[in-house]
Amino acid sequence: MKNSPVDPIALTADLVRCPSVTPDEGGALVLLEKLLRGAGFTCHRVDRGGVANLFARWGEKGAEKTFGFNGHTDVVPLGDKAAWTMPPFGARQKDGYLWGRGATDMKSGVAAFVAAAVDLVQNDPPEGAIILTITGDEEGDAIDGTTALLDWMQLWGEAMDVCLVGEPTCPDHMGEMIKIGRRGSLSAWFTLTGVQGHSAYPHRACNPLPAMARLMDRLSSHVLDEGTEHFDASTLAVVTIDTGNPATNVIPAECRATVNIRFNDAHDSKGLIAWMQDELDNVAEEFGIAGKLTVKVSGESFLTPPGRLSDLVAAAVEAETGVKPIFSTTGGTSDARFVKDHCPVVEFGLVGRTMHQVDERVAVDQISQLKSIYSRILQDYFA
Amino acid sequence: MKNSPVDPIALTADLVRCPSVTPDEGGALVLLEKLLRGAGFTCHRVDRGGVANLFARWGEKGAEKTFGFNGHTDVVPLGDKAAWTMPPFGARQKDGYLWGRGATDMKSGVAAFVAAAVDLVQNDPPEGAIILTITGDEEGDAIDGTTALLDWMQLWGEAMDVCLVGEPTCPDHMGEMIKIGRRGSLSAWFTLTGVQGHSAYPHRACNPLPAMARLMDRLSSHVLDEGTEHFDASTLAVVTIDTGNPATNVIPAECRATVNIRFNDAHDSKGLIAWMQDELDNVAEEFGIAGKLTVKVSGESFLTPPGRLSDLVAAAVEAETGVKPIFSTTGGTSDARFVKDHCPVVEFGLVGRTMHQVDERVAVDQISQLKSIYSRILQDYFA
Repeated sequence: MKNSPVDPIALTADLVRCPSVTPDEGGALVLLEKLLRGAGFTCHRVDRGGVANLFARWGEKGAEKTFGFNGHTDVVPLGDKAAWTMPPFGARQKDGYLWGRGATDMKSGVAAFVAAAVDLVQNDPPEGAIILTITGDEEGDAIDGTTALLDWMQLWGEAMDVCLVGEPTCPDHMGEMIKIGRRGSLSAWFTLTGVQGHSAYPHRACNPLPAMARLMDRLSSHVLDEGTEHFDASTLAVVTIDTGNPATNVIPAECRATVNIRFNDAHDSKGLIAWMQDELDNVAEEFGIAGKLTVKVSGESFLTPPGRLSDLVAAAVEAETGVKPIFSTTGGTSDARFVKDHCPVVEFGLVGRTMHQVDERVAVDQISQLKSIYSRILQDYFA
Repeated sequence: MKNSPVDPIALTADLVRCPSVTPDEGGALVLLEKLLRGAGFTCHRVDRGGVANLFARWGEKGAEKTFGFNGHTDVVPLGDKAAWTMPPFGARQKDGYLWGRGATDMKSGVAAFVAAAVDLVQNDPPEGAIILTITGDEEGDAIDGTTALLDWMQLWGEAMDVCLVGEPTCPDHMGEMIKIGRRGSLSAWFTLTGVQGHSAYPHRACNPLPAMARLMDRLSSHVLDEGTEHFDASTLAVVTIDTGNPATNVIPAECRATVNIRFNDAHDSKGLIAWMQDELDNVAEEFGIAGKLTVKVSGESFLTPPGRLSDLVAAAVEAETGVKPIFSTTGGTSDARFVKDHCPVVEFGLVGRTMHQVDERVAVDQISQLKSIYSRILQDYFA
């Protein structure tokens, strides 16, 4: 095999030096565009709503086989800057690690794929196309990020046949986990409104708190499911109940509560919202109280059933690491939730243990390993 | 009947002009002491813990018949000062009302009794004694108020055979209600502590909120009693539940709730606390969570069963107003809760509709009426 034209470790370091805290581009996409353009990729900046995004394609539009990659260059804030051992945008190497915000989540993943893709197209050009969709808003609201790229692609007739998301997917050891789906996530805000009054005369007031207690008890004690073939059981967490009444002799007029649900493929947000609304209506009627429900759906659950794509990725991981990865649907949301409406999507990346933390860092040898895995995936896909 | 040496309306006005917001004496007790001393009363200031209190006795210590009166000259704060129609310490008369903070609660009551007592001892000296216990801390914590007076009296061998508390007891019409007891009151603060975590992984956290919802549902849906012979049913009000967690992806570690119980003579605080502790322990065990309970008892319930004292007061009220008063145990707490440990106590005063409100005011003719009722009570008692 010829030499790799892009060093994924150096590219990771260059990207970490770009202070791209959402929604700042920080120079990261400019750097990638220049590199990819130089390697023969057609590039388009797809900026929307103050967010920078990069589309890049090697090969012909509409090629028979188009391999897609999705990643992000934006990073979460530093947290307590003074607590960092190393400069958070310094990309210093020490003790076998490359230190900095975004080192694991997920500038190393982007760098590894870019290195693998450039390597392939320059040393062993495939029959087909490679598309990279790199967003600058995965850690934020994600309204004008990957969605903007996918909207733009649809408009211009660009499509991926399969897509690999390069998020760090391994909890502890390199190669141990591929994500083939994600649970959905929604948050629900409940407000119950009664009539304020004096604690000594509760019959003249209408206290929303007993109703809220009943409602939260019912919601949290309900078993949503026992898990499905590829998913853990759905969960509901009451995350806050608040009233803010400092006076023991006053019955308050209002109480608020928030619930967060992580749901598997036995549910969709519509059904869950209808269930919560029913429970709210029941309690409102039982207690003669007014209730309001507001919901924000972060993403529906989705699954790319184990098959050709996941097997391809798993085989490459095992060949390069000796580890047989498990197919998982655990964890929070990722931009795979947007991609899944367009093509089969799986996620594989390195160990994410320090993501979002102070002293985020990546094992340098994992970057090389990840580049090798991505290279093998591309070779096998186009073989 | 001879002229009344003290004009209860003028005395009410003089007292209202003293800005005696708890714990400020404001000149009110100084004024009363001077007046009573001049009328032949033995007076002692019984100050304790920064609170001013006045003890006054006419007649011999240990007389065969000693009629007691309890009242207070402190008042609650003004609230929104700009919202007052009249100067809150101005004691202006308009539209048949005397306006000002404390006009109903309860400077008019104190003034009416002082006028009645001075009238009696000067015009028709009784065989026996009259004791006045006037506190400067009924609206506050009441730790060093009436309790300080009663402690002092016990120490010096002073005792009342019966006691009338002059709080405004009539909801709407003069004469309609005598209080022969009061419900007890306590507040309970619950803290549940679990383990913080990520909403996506609730099995790794221990959420105190479902436990709190269950606990508050159990407490608020429990029927304490259906009422007793002289009391309404006991009530429990959940007055606040608070968490203060702004993040939907975080399961909080702690949740707090406050409950207020107004209880009749079917309960005492000890039994209620034991019940709440049991329910807390049960929920803590069910949810594997730590729970803490703190309680403050404002007063136990008490009853002066209908009998000689209440009949005496009722007869006087009916004779002066034509209204047959009902015996009630409704409402919040009063200092009668302290007096009841020393002698039979009932409460009667004028209409309290504007008490604690902006534009507190008293119907001027009710002050005269109240003085007449108090005069008749004293005459009948000593007859």
